[in-house]
Amino acid sequence: MTAPIMPKADAAELITAARIRQGLTWSDIAERIDAPVVWTVAALLGQHPVPAEKAAVVVEVLGLGEGVAESLTRQPMRVADDAAASDPTIYRFHEALAVYGPAIKELIHEEFGDGIMSAINFKVDVARRADPDGDRVVVTFDGKFLDYRW
Amino acid sequence: MTAPIMPKADAAELITAARIRQGLTWSDIAERIDAPVVWTVAALLGQHPVPAEKAAVVVEVLGLGEGVAESLTRQPMRVADDAAASDPTIYRFHEALAVYGPAIKELIHEEFGDGIMSAINFKVDVARRADPDGDRVVVTFDGKFLDYRW
Amino acid sequence: MTAPIMPKADAAELITAARIRQGLTWSDIAERIDAPVVWTVAALLGQHPVPAEKAAVVVEVLGLGEGVAESLTRQPMRVADDAAASDPTIYRFHEALAVYGPAIKELIHEEFGDGIMSAINFKVDVARRADPDGDRVVVTFDGKFLDYRW
Amino acid sequence: MTAPIMPKADAAELITAARIRQGLTWSDIAERIDAPVVWTVAALLGQHPVPAEKAAVVVEVLGLGEGVAESLTRQPMRVADDAAASDPTIYRFHEALAVYGPAIKELIHEEFGDGIMSAINFKVDVARRADPDGDRVVVTFDGKFLDYRW
Amino acid sequence: MTAPIMPKADAAELITAARIRQGLTWSDIAERIDAPVVWTVAALLGQHPVPAEKAAVVVEVLGLGEGVAESLTRQPMRVADDAAASDPTIYRFHEALAVYGPAIKELIHEEFGDGIMSAINFKVDVARRADPDGDRVVVTFDGKFLDYRW
Amino acid sequence: MTAPIMPKADAAELITAARIRQGLTWSDIAERIDAPVVWTVAALLGQHPVPAEKAAVVVEVLGLGEGVAESLTRQPMRVADDAAASDPTIYRFHEALAVYGPAIKELIHEEFGDGIMSAINFKVDVARRADPDGDRVVVTFDGKFLDYRW
Amino acid sequence: MTAPIMPKADAAELITAARIRQGLTWSDIAERIDAPVVWTVAALLGQHPVPAEKAAVVVEVLGLGEGVAESLTRQPMRVADDAAASDPTIYRFHEALAVYGPAIKELIHEEFGDGIMSAINFKVDVARRADPDGDRVVVTFDGKFLDYRW
Amino acid sequence: MTAPIMPKADAAELITAARIRQGLTWSDIAERIDAPVVWTVAALLGQHPVPAEKAAVVVEVLGLGEGVAESLTRQPMRVADDAAASDPTIYRFHEALAVYGPAIKELIHEEFGDGIMSAINFKVDVARRADPDGDRVVVTFDGKFLDYRW
Amino acid sequence: MTAPIMPKADAAELITAARIRQGLTWSDIAERIDAPVVWTVAALLGQHPVPAEKAAVVVEVLGLGEGVAESLTRQPMRVADDAAASDPTIYRFHEALAVYGPAIKELIHEEFGDGIMSAINFKVDVARRADPDGDRVVVTFDGKFLDYRW
Amino acid sequence: MTAPIMPKADAAELITAARIRQGLTWSDIAERIDAPVVWTVAALLGQHPVPAEKAAVVVEVLGLGEGVAESLTRQPMRVADDAAASDPTIYRFHEALAVYGPAIKELIHEEFGDGIMSAINFKVDVARRADPDGDRVVVTFDGKFLDYRW
Repeated sequence: MTAPIMPKADAAELITAARIRQGLTWSDIAERIDAPVVWTVAALLGQHPVPAEKAAVVVEVLGLGEGVAESLTRQPMRVADDAAASDPTIYRFHEALAVYGPAIKELIHEEFGDGIMSAINFKVDVARRADPDGDRVVVTFDGKFLDYRW
Repeated sequence: MTAPIMPKADAAELITAARIRQGLTWSDIAERIDAPVVWTVAALLGQHPVPAEKAAVVVEVLGLGEGVAESLTRQPMRVADDAAASDPTIYRFHEALAVYGPAIKELIHEEFGDGIMSAINFKVDVARRADPDGDRVVVTFDGKFLDYRW
Repeated sequence: MTAPIMPKADAAELITAARIRQGLTWSDIAERIDAPVVWTVAALLGQHPVPAEKAAVVVEVLGLGEGVAESLTRQPMRVADDAAASDPTIYRFHEALAVYGPAIKELIHEEFGDGIMSAINFKVDVARRADPDGDRVVVTFDGKFLDYRW
Repeated sequence: MTAPIMPKADAAELITAARIRQGLTWSDIAERIDAPVVWTVAALLGQHPVPAEKAAVVVEVLGLGEGVAESLTRQPMRVADDAAASDPTIYRFHEALAVYGPAIKELIHEEFGDGIMSAINFKVDVARRADPDGDRVVVTFDGKFLDYRW
Repeated sequence: MTAPIMPKADAAELITAARIRQGLTWSDIAERIDAPVVWTVAALLGQHPVPAEKAAVVVEVLGLGEGVAESLTRQPMRVADDAAASDPTIYRFHEALAVYGPAIKELIHEEFGDGIMSAINFKVDVARRADPDGDRVVVTFDGKFLDYRW
Repeated sequence: MTAPIMPKADAAELITAARIRQGLTWSDIAERIDAPVVWTVAALLGQHPVPAEKAAVVVEVLGLGEGVAESLTRQPMRVADDAAASDPTIYRFHEALAVYGPAIKELIHEEFGDGIMSAINFKVDVARRADPDGDRVVVTFDGKFLDYRW
Repeated sequence: MTAPIMPKADAAELITAARIRQGLTWSDIAERIDAPVVWTVAALLGQHPVPAEKAAVVVEVLGLGEGVAESLTRQPMRVADDAAASDPTIYRFHEALAVYGPAIKELIHEEFGDGIMSAINFKVDVARRADPDGDRVVVTFDGKFLDYRW
Repeated sequence: MTAPIMPKADAAELITAARIRQGLTWSDIAERIDAPVVWTVAALLGQHPVPAEKAAVVVEVLGLGEGVAESLTRQPMRVADDAAASDPTIYRFHEALAVYGPAIKELIHEEFGDGIMSAINFKVDVARRADPDGDRVVVTFDGKFLDYRW
Repeated sequence: MTAPIMPKADAAELITAARIRQGLTWSDIAERIDAPVVWTVAALLGQHPVPAEKAAVVVEVLGLGEGVAESLTRQPMRVADDAAASDPTIYRFHEALAVYGPAIKELIHEEFGDGIMSAINFKVDVARRADPDGDRVVVTFDGKFLDYRW
Repeated sequence: MTAPIMPKADAAELITAARIRQGLTWSDIAERIDAPVVWTVAALLGQHPVPAEKAAVVVEVLGLGEGVAESLTRQPMRVADDAAASDPTIYRFHEALAVYGPAIKELIHEEFGDGIMSAINFKVDVARRADPDGDRVVVTFDGKFLDYRW
């Protein structure tokens, strides 16, 4: 009863190991817990608290222990991982923001006025678009506009 | 003949001043030069070299001098502006990458294998989506998949 | 017509100089433009676009030029000033967040669930509370709760 | 007798695990030790030394060992956790300070003269305020004014 | 009337130039304005607002203009100068804090309990102490103890 | 014979645990080893090599093993602990240097010429001074003046 | 089944130990798995996922366990190791980029137009070139040109 | 006679402006001064002192003044430009070093023993290699091997 | 056979412990392995690969195991230890470079032309020079001049 | 009388320009002012106050104005120039300290006990030593040993 809760990073490592060894994709797991796939991966990697019933399905599907489920349900501290930002697959998004971020800001203000795209009332999607010159990765950021309102 | 080329930051300031004073939107200008609007804003803010004929249209529409056009056509050094990353409108995108970046990476690899979304063979779009709970900002990153290939 | 818009930092310096020389308080100015005082100070220091009619009142009251008014109405880039964070008057708030931030987070989640206090749909107030042991500074952060919602 | 004192971070993890498993809120615990709730959470997370009698109640309520109580009573090193500052729930407060900090400073000086709000003779409160447009998080910083006095 | 107030750094440069050219020491000036010498130097370098009557004496003694006096009276933003911290004369104090800071903290807590030495209700003195092995620099930090008090 | 020497941080943790459990103050220990109290605390926390005879007294008084004594006698690497600098009790000293450091430098040069206060031929003292407005922490830095001498 | 996958850094350490103890060069191993030698070293140090059949050869040749092979096949997070960049053998390349990087950029644009050398569709080679004044290290970066294409 | 020497950054801007306005390539200029093209660009951008006779040719070809020639001949301080490292065209090289640097180091040691590739007795070349899948940028780093030799 | 090689930091700790316990100086050890003393210390602390025969002598003299010898012979990654740079004994050298580095650079160029002192074909010596005003530490850096040579 | 003193960086630029144009070496100037050459260069670059009589000689020899002399005599703020540390000629010294700094520290302690080499009671020399394998740069750091003395 006095053991600490398993850190979310450890739970994520166990989930990843079981997922790979059982030949399951992230999409398979997302389907099993009936949740959007990006949300599912983010949550299982530790970025969202997972509802208890979904956590129970995850550990059952992957044959993991209750400690993993308990860890998944805990409220996370969402710490930015600066090291991960240097991974080339992730870095390209940061580079795109460096190049286009001020332009995106200009156009949000032009269309909506002074405010932001919420990153909380927010969803993101990753898709493949076939293209004769090479298929494309299409990532859609979709968040509610919030205007500066005193 | 020996004056330096106007820095792109100065050209961007002059373009912005003229655009606002004449009541033109970025979309108006993009239409005039027949270019995608995010590309147009990014380019006029200094992130892309602008073809000479488009630069000529910009300075004509805005009533600016040849020095601005010359500046626009120059190849830029695309330096990341770390300060801009703290602007709340831009920061939300960095926050979304901190929360969802590793998940996006997992799904790119699941769908495409080892590789990246190109940030060079790439386009980005900003759109408004009506929503009864409040309209939404929808930003789409669309880049060619490049696989690690030796 | 081709001069750049006055930088907001320059406008703020001119406003500050005129305000001090005329013996006006920030509260006086806030009253003149019929706006909350913290909002007023933040906006005149460059953190918010000021509606044209309010900007016109500001420059009229302070005897400043149209360039200041134009600068005030522009959409700002809200860059975080890391140097200002070391000023002792401002630093105490950062220190309080270092000491109490994780506790505040715990209690927001306990009361509201997973989510954040908006810093956009948000207002802040500075007040004086008399106290026999020495008067107190009372700063209230008041933002809409936003739940993580996919 | 020669074992080191349990680190406060470990005590906090054990307290959190027991609290969650027993279905207790932070408010429940604060009530048990008759202390303000933000103070209680901060102290149990390691930011304040806890009086021995209160520490004894905490470990009794949560069924933890004496080592946890000993750890709680120790004087802390209050190290700022820069990583935690990137958690979105905490970050919004830092962002608010980036946007409004200089304005808050101006108004403190206008009202009190040259000095600061103490972060030591200080209390903070987290409350919920009902609002038809969505309930609000209200966080109040309340510290004694200290004037620069030689 | 619309010129900005002279930056405190510029005022400090002018004061320094006049002081050196007239062969005045900082102590001479402190005496003239009847203020402690460390306070005087800090204030004239820009770290404290100077009362108007003292500022008037300073500019009169040094033959400077009213703009310097106006600058001196302004409330400063006390920004930490990280570069100055590398000057060997200043660095030795930082090094001493690196070596002895945690010990000083232990002894403050042992003597006073949980709290801090105020850096606001605070004075500092620089003195020379004769010593046959070489005279010594004696710098005394003297601040009111503030206990953590909720 | 081939075990590594106990790290000084571990020795410090053991000393601290024993000291607290036995109800000894740092001053008690300093008296036992006949050494200045700030030196004693700094040395036992790992910042100075402790002479073997004093180390023997420390471990005897506190009932610790020979490994602790061996660790104490080792020459330290005196690494600056940047995290500790954010502890409010320690931070106030850094803040005081940010505000008054350049003034202290000016006065050292005015009194002694070009040079520094040694941080090696140096002692520091922490004292309490009674004051009707609240007792004061008085910390004295006392170091030999060293002139730049080629 | 629920053990985490061995971290790639651990696998790399085991591979290195076995390689050295068996007197094998990196070239020997590259030959065994029929892969380019730079790719082989990078992959075995953890920068590329290794196809299962090649991983099987590696562990067989070096007498390592299946856990190493499983680790090698996993998709890596390619985190930049800033510490390694200070190793003199690696640092010289960074220094060369500091000195010649902008010139390389100019010539890429002069020859190819606006775009980059891909670091994904990319290979690198290390060779020795005999030279009477001392043999030379010749490192060739060879990547597909990608033009900025919207 | 007492004017400062023109900063190399200013000379580089003037050279660039004249080069572009006259429609000359870097290769044209390199040919005129009979020097390798990467060396030429680096030197004219300020990274190498330029022999007086070559500097004279440069200013004559480009129609620039003697001040530019004088600036070119001066010994440079070769300061690393961290901002330039974020330009995508330059960043790809840093990324390649992050991914392949340790492997390159291993192979240099395997082939040459303990030592480095000199970045001083060094040359670099940029070439285009035709490829049916898209032409390639080939950058060759060629430096003398220096062994650690006491 | 599959255990990893002992990290050089661990080997260094074991060597240090044995050296101190046996009352041997670094000079004693350097003599035993017939190597310069600075090289010896640096190598045993992990900065140079140690030839197998010398490593064998070290472990024999100090009574350590073969694992230590194996570790010593491995090629190091020479990572800069930024924390060590804050140790006062080491820091003084960095401070001297901050004060005199640009002057040293000027004189190297004046005497040798454009180039550097090699840090690879390099040796360093530490000596004591008696002086009536206090003995002096004399550290000599001695490296081959390398001219920038394309 | 109210003009600020010329910044030392500007004085250094003027001295450098005049020195180069007149074909004088640093050694020539050092001889003229009868001072050690490294001290002379450091002082004229702004790192030491220059006695008035030597400053007068410098400006007379170089044909500069009184403002330069006044600037030279002023007490400097000796700020570390982190950018200069990346210049390859200077960087090699920092690299040598990264590799050999801890070894130098060990040997200082072995020879002298606990303490440091002073960087204030200190001199440095740059010399050329002929060597058939290439002449060598010999830089000698020579500082008084200071023992930690309470």
